[in-house]
Amino acid sequence: MDDFFKQTLLYDFYGELLTSHQKEIYEQSVLEDLSLGEIAQAAGISRQGVHDLVKRCDRTLQGYEDKLHLVEKFLAVREKVHRIGQVLDRYDPEDNSQLAREIREIAREIIDEL
Amino acid sequence: MDDFFKQTLLYDFYGELLTSHQKEIYEQSVLEDLSLGEIAQAAGISRQGVHDLVKRCDRTLQGYEDKLHLVEKFLAVREKVHRIGQVLDRYDPEDNSQLAREIREIAREIIDEL
Repeated sequence: MDDFFKQTLLYDFYGELLTSHQKEIYEQSVLEDLSLGEIAQAAGISRQGVHDLVKRCDRTLQGYEDKLHLVEKFLAVREKVHRIGQVLDRYDPEDNSQLAREIREIAREIIDEL
Repeated sequence: MDDFFKQTLLYDFYGELLTSHQKEIYEQSVLEDLSLGEIAQAAGISRQGVHDLVKRCDRTLQGYEDKLHLVEKFLAVREKVHRIGQVLDRYDPEDNSQLAREIREIAREIIDEL
């Protein structure tokens, strides 16, 4: 898993446990990919301060995952739900029976939920 | 959702964020259903202390859910995975085709994961 994808997932799951100040800086740095300088200037803190805050948030978020494993669990579930679609495809990718449509629809709803 | 089921689910998801002392008392009280008196005596604290600790843990766990909504998400996903089994049953509860078996097997794996 690349770092950005991992950071995004961890933030999706546990970001609400950060303070609003941490969230603001973390979003600017990681999700919006602003430079340390831009963020530092807007927030009135040093570039080093921004850098340290982001690293600390990474450790905090990873700490939640180390304890709760909820990202790991949801990735495993998502992979299995994808496999339901693949099983249907393998039997008949053109299958338009009501059964296949209903199962595909539920699988899609689950993926949207995750 | 009854209180016990809710407490159990919240503890399953977020219990690792409690301290080991909190976990020990909470498990004895909620999961093992020991009396306040028994727990108090074994832990060397007052019955009121046990009661307050359990209530505080309930609030802490609910606080995580209010922020993260992961139990809610999990229940919604589980309900949808059950629906996949129900759709297969409705079409043919005796369906023993490889397709139906594979999908049922994956659905079962997902439920076990959750």
